[in-house]
Amino acid sequence: MRRLKLATAGESHGPLEIAILSGMPAALPLLEEQVDRELGRRQRGYGRGGRQQIEQDRVRFQAGVRRGMTTGAPLALVVENRDHANWSATMAAAPSVEPDPRPVTVPRPGHADLSGIAKYGFADARDVLERSSARETVSRVAAGAVAKALLASLGTRIAGRVVAIGGIADEYPVDLLDPLSVDWEQVEASDLGLASPALEERVRARIDEARALGVSLGGVFEIWAWDLCPGLGGYATMQERLDGRLGGGLLGIPAIKGVEFGAGFAVAAASGDEVHDALYPDAAGGVRRRTNRAGGLEGGMTNGAPLVVRAAMKPIPTMTSPLPSIDVDTHAAASAHRERSDVEAVAAARVVGEAVVALILADAYLEKFGGDHLADTIAALEHYRRRVEERGLWPRS
Amino acid sequence: MRRLKLATAGESHGPLEIAILSGMPAALPLLEEQVDRELGRRQRGYGRGGRQQIEQDRVRFQAGVRRGMTTGAPLALVVENRDHANWSATMAAAPSVEPDPRPVTVPRPGHADLSGIAKYGFADARDVLERSSARETVSRVAAGAVAKALLASLGTRIAGRVVAIGGIADEYPVDLLDPLSVDWEQVEASDLGLASPALEERVRARIDEARALGVSLGGVFEIWAWDLCPGLGGYATMQERLDGRLGGGLLGIPAIKGVEFGAGFAVAAASGDEVHDALYPDAAGGVRRRTNRAGGLEGGMTNGAPLVVRAAMKPIPTMTSPLPSIDVDTHAAASAHRERSDVEAVAAARVVGEAVVALILADAYLEKFGGDHLADTIAALEHYRRRVEERGLWPRS
Amino acid sequence: MRRLKLATAGESHGPLEIAILSGMPAALPLLEEQVDRELGRRQRGYGRGGRQQIEQDRVRFQAGVRRGMTTGAPLALVVENRDHANWSATMAAAPSVEPDPRPVTVPRPGHADLSGIAKYGFADARDVLERSSARETVSRVAAGAVAKALLASLGTRIAGRVVAIGGIADEYPVDLLDPLSVDWEQVEASDLGLASPALEERVRARIDEARALGVSLGGVFEIWAWDLCPGLGGYATMQERLDGRLGGGLLGIPAIKGVEFGAGFAVAAASGDEVHDALYPDAAGGVRRRTNRAGGLEGGMTNGAPLVVRAAMKPIPTMTSPLPSIDVDTHAAASAHRERSDVEAVAAARVVGEAVVALILADAYLEKFGGDHLADTIAALEHYRRRVEERGLWPRS
Amino acid sequence: MRRLKLATAGESHGPLEIAILSGMPAALPLLEEQVDRELGRRQRGYGRGGRQQIEQDRVRFQAGVRRGMTTGAPLALVVENRDHANWSATMAAAPSVEPDPRPVTVPRPGHADLSGIAKYGFADARDVLERSSARETVSRVAAGAVAKALLASLGTRIAGRVVAIGGIADEYPVDLLDPLSVDWEQVEASDLGLASPALEERVRARIDEARALGVSLGGVFEIWAWDLCPGLGGYATMQERLDGRLGGGLLGIPAIKGVEFGAGFAVAAASGDEVHDALYPDAAGGVRRRTNRAGGLEGGMTNGAPLVVRAAMKPIPTMTSPLPSIDVDTHAAASAHRERSDVEAVAAARVVGEAVVALILADAYLEKFGGDHLADTIAALEHYRRRVEERGLWPRS
Repeated sequence: MRRLKLATAGESHGPLEIAILSGMPAALPLLEEQVDRELGRRQRGYGRGGRQQIEQDRVRFQAGVRRGMTTGAPLALVVENRDHANWSATMAAAPSVEPDPRPVTVPRPGHADLSGIAKYGFADARDVLERSSARETVSRVAAGAVAKALLASLGTRIAGRVVAIGGIADEYPVDLLDPLSVDWEQVEASDLGLASPALEERVRARIDEARALGVSLGGVFEIWAWDLCPGLGGYATMQERLDGRLGGGLLGIPAIKGVEFGAGFAVAAASGDEVHDALYPDAAGGVRRRTNRAGGLEGGMTNGAPLVVRAAMKPIPTMTSPLPSIDVDTHAAASAHRERSDVEAVAAARVVGEAVVALILADAYLEKFGGDHLADTIAALEHYRRRVEERGLWPRS
Repeated sequence: MRRLKLATAGESHGPLEIAILSGMPAALPLLEEQVDRELGRRQRGYGRGGRQQIEQDRVRFQAGVRRGMTTGAPLALVVENRDHANWSATMAAAPSVEPDPRPVTVPRPGHADLSGIAKYGFADARDVLERSSARETVSRVAAGAVAKALLASLGTRIAGRVVAIGGIADEYPVDLLDPLSVDWEQVEASDLGLASPALEERVRARIDEARALGVSLGGVFEIWAWDLCPGLGGYATMQERLDGRLGGGLLGIPAIKGVEFGAGFAVAAASGDEVHDALYPDAAGGVRRRTNRAGGLEGGMTNGAPLVVRAAMKPIPTMTSPLPSIDVDTHAAASAHRERSDVEAVAAARVVGEAVVALILADAYLEKFGGDHLADTIAALEHYRRRVEERGLWPRS
Repeated sequence: MRRLKLATAGESHGPLEIAILSGMPAALPLLEEQVDRELGRRQRGYGRGGRQQIEQDRVRFQAGVRRGMTTGAPLALVVENRDHANWSATMAAAPSVEPDPRPVTVPRPGHADLSGIAKYGFADARDVLERSSARETVSRVAAGAVAKALLASLGTRIAGRVVAIGGIADEYPVDLLDPLSVDWEQVEASDLGLASPALEERVRARIDEARALGVSLGGVFEIWAWDLCPGLGGYATMQERLDGRLGGGLLGIPAIKGVEFGAGFAVAAASGDEVHDALYPDAAGGVRRRTNRAGGLEGGMTNGAPLVVRAAMKPIPTMTSPLPSIDVDTHAAASAHRERSDVEAVAAARVVGEAVVALILADAYLEKFGGDHLADTIAALEHYRRRVEERGLWPRS
Repeated sequence: MRRLKLATAGESHGPLEIAILSGMPAALPLLEEQVDRELGRRQRGYGRGGRQQIEQDRVRFQAGVRRGMTTGAPLALVVENRDHANWSATMAAAPSVEPDPRPVTVPRPGHADLSGIAKYGFADARDVLERSSARETVSRVAAGAVAKALLASLGTRIAGRVVAIGGIADEYPVDLLDPLSVDWEQVEASDLGLASPALEERVRARIDEARALGVSLGGVFEIWAWDLCPGLGGYATMQERLDGRLGGGLLGIPAIKGVEFGAGFAVAAASGDEVHDALYPDAAGGVRRRTNRAGGLEGGMTNGAPLVVRAAMKPIPTMTSPLPSIDVDTHAAASAHRERSDVEAVAAARVVGEAVVALILADAYLEKFGGDHLADTIAALEHYRRRVEERGLWPRS
């Protein structure tokens, strides 16, 4: 990110997850409840494991918010790891003459374990997995909730849904130009994050089957952002291109192996006239599109149409039927380390994806419009809107 | 990038494309010919347009290289735009009382034009398209050639191939663990960048057909990097995750709409035991994998297996049969601006993709190993290799 | 900083000061006591106010350290503000229907108050002063303690002393080439941070006089770092020059108005032969200097001689005899807001200065030598030392 | 810098000095002549050497400017090194079987030479001195001229003067609150950059004397910026503090060994009531100061008063009466390498200082106010001015 800066710290079984988010303007109304709502959404999901029963993630604002408003100072967002109580000896910062009671010497394929112990020279993969754990995404979700609040005050909305789990795709029909072609209330009502209620039973059965087999599942989620101003991001330097920033952020979420915008990989197989979104005058002297295969991004910028991006999540590497691995002490074949885990967490990953998209869009707004007080940012956005609308160039969809 | 810094400047019909690359160690042997070879590869391709006849891209090292070696100072890589001679009046930096002879007022769908004039308030989309043009990728390819030279000196190789054009997929069988399962000589011999010679005729016919129809095509390319050390990138912060950095870089190339690593989107449909790459002891006391569905990245790091990443390129937005658009002065319906262009440029985009991957990997090496003189970097890599190999944890494939 | 990243959050009367420090290698032995020692040094000082009686700063490692060693994950360094208990209503993050019991409407000259309420649009300068308070330097000192531990493991030492308070200069004779020409034990024994015990009484009297008058005092401190390798920093880009990085860091400490290296401003008045440090062969085939007017930096790099830098601290802006100001609500003349404060805090500022210098030097080492495990960094430094010493170019002093 | 990015490349006797400046808004009127004027100012000075007779620095805009206006694309600012014609064999990028005709093996004390060859492992200090040369500041001055144009369009002015050369101080009386208390026309008329004409003869005699002795001189310069908006920079994070950013930039100019703001080092010797600038209501309902000892910065921000900063420049390390050094090949005592140089260049350094201050202030404006078109930035500034003036908090001086 370019104006917003997010630093996170925390181990999966350490005492706290901490995020420091700087660069937010002052005077943004913000309640811990807004963050907790997102943390709660992240914890839901049919295929989740025992950890989610232990944790009931609640944020504490330890800095940067006073009397219900941001102050422009860095926000400190702190979430306690309740499970730490069960791990305090293992995770203690102080040295100990006692050997670590639970050393991990059999890396899990698909996880950071093997490369992590090589990189850092650890004897115990515990020192890898505590930080490489997806537990860290608590901090991204908390910071993303702040970004969402900013976006809401700028008129922009964000939502995400699950479009496939374990090979079962949701063929729910959408119009990429119309975010309300998705029934977001239904999506929120579903603990699988699906728009099609009819699919739920089949997906649950697939998850149950996987759980019975001791294996894990992946899936695909889709994030939408709409009522975006055109011209966020840019083409002037490779660093400011918004597709790169968004894609980089999403691929930086653990377990994400692919990202595509709009019509995505399908654009590669079509001809230009079938792919690009033609422009039309509208009766009111403006400009409109009839399609949104670009997914809201052209030339590294938002184009005023909804942003639509999908991400592919691999199955969780920790499984109760573990894969073949080796013991790094003995080099003997062994079954991979088991750590309590989920069967699938696609709905949760989609909440993380929303957070990441929200942070990057908020960053792009603040970069373009500046502002130390929220009203400054809004005034600059309104000035820009007028300038563009006067020429009839703010696309309507 | 974190240690390497790349700044580029240049308009498509301006006098020069300029790249400044800083952060390279001293004492890397480097010839202009090495860069020219990559620039030449970027210009090839069956579907390319007239511009490639005009340009014969040659780099001049204007700083940072003396007597055939890098000096540690920033490299200035300058490529002349021959076509500038035909555009000197339009592109002059000095003000003029004459109106611009060729103003562009009808934005091309799929390009930066419309959002660009909104963002910057231009009357003439020329001021957008000159910089948003893919001509800028000359600089990335030039800088990438330097990165490739560094990687070669560290034992790492990079190559790319086209795996689909206009919907025709190359089903060439590959073993993701074995980079030599691709016939790279054949790929280089093909001006389409294809590994399967049998496919060439069909693809050419597809391109000819598109050219006859005045439309453009996209495709998919695949980049490989191998003999990589494990542990490049990292999981400790979201910013250092290598999948995010690589994906962000590739999605920052114009026209790229999707990226996937290893088995890619397919991982979302399989179960964990079908996706993750199990680990096995080998006879020599080491560790090996039998598969590489992860595409060489686990936990945000290289894992010692070949890096394999694919990118989807949309059809080029400039077409001789232009799409419906509007004139931004009159708001009347109009046919989109035509600028000389290619029918398809997937093979060229794959050269850009190689360059971007090379830059990001070189950056990750330098971040991990430091070094002001190339020998320092190599010594640190060798120290690390010994440290990891002593424990039998450097994967063999 | 370039590899190390430090983010801090926390308000002066908020619950916590939090620092997240990322980029440290793994396997650095680290105890909370090491940090607490520096926090304690920061709290000492003859002229300190009541706050230092309330606080007894103790760090908790909440992330990034396990079993007495860094793990390569970001460190979370958390220090509780004991005084928060007295301020919990005023500082609450939740909104309140009650008006703020202690609004601050009369800005203190010399502080951030006036410009801060303009910048952020606050009604209450409390929202400025809580973050602009020097209390935030707790986090820099905590992070600096970690940097010092790294530097110690690389053979480099850091120390600082007060060279003037309230216009009384310590004329203690030093040889800039010889860090042991300063009696650092005496400096540590002095709660004024002075090397000359004979001066203490006079300085205390000066402070007492100022306290009686209700005014504050400033001073000058001097930081030394020695046994530094030559070639840290660099001249290749303006961004990597170490004088700029160090000077920028020191001038980023609240109240610092000037910085000078080595002979400092005096070099401007002398001729080149009186300023530059000539080089001489030594009997053992090496190179040495007889002077260190450069203060250890030439060409933006360490030159192997001790780094010596001085910083001028203005008197603390909060005074019991407040300066004329205005009430920002009424625009009437008023006496500036009083907040409990110190008469002088130069010895404490010098501890902050040490921390900042330590962080920037640690960053420069890690940038040059890389390393994920401490042993990697040390091995790369040793390789470099051998390479330079073989040519007899490692300066001896 | 945070929004603006400046990359430079070029060797002292290489073909070109190149700067790429990105982040400037579009629609800023800009002529090459504006840059050339600053380049010409940089070349002036009584004590300059032969190089300035050879060069007549002229910029070419090679990117980012069209028809007299910036386009938002990165600017490429290219200045030819005329002297390169005399050095083309030595400086060739291509390898050569001929040995370098002019290897430099005797480092100059005070320069980067010795540490540079250690750092990079060079045999020939030519590879150091070509980049560590102050010739590189051509690029900073060129980029600074662009920043000055932006600042002028935002109502802010910058000027610099020499306040001491070779120990002769200009006691010209100034009122730090009133930039027009300096006769800037006189300063510009003086090729020594002095405000006091009466001093010129004495200074010239001092320079002549130094030239006769073969030694060099340093000095002190002072940069002013005024009509600044309050609240640039900030206190919320250490990274945004403007004193650190400005001081870091100035200390990153070759030969600068000290920096001080406002009353500078003198503040350390006074008491708080003598240092801080009290605030007073004015008749018109605003706020004013009667002093500016803070030099325009409080709490890491501009406070609306003129910014005044001084920098100490050491004597140039290259001297015709060279200092003792060693030959790095033989380790024998030797006289330091002589390279054509100036006796003093304080007036030129002050032009570089203006450029650096201009860049950092322009960056701070763009960070606070955003804007892709210049009119956006201006509109956001005007909105802010109204918001602050409505409360009577925009200081008048």
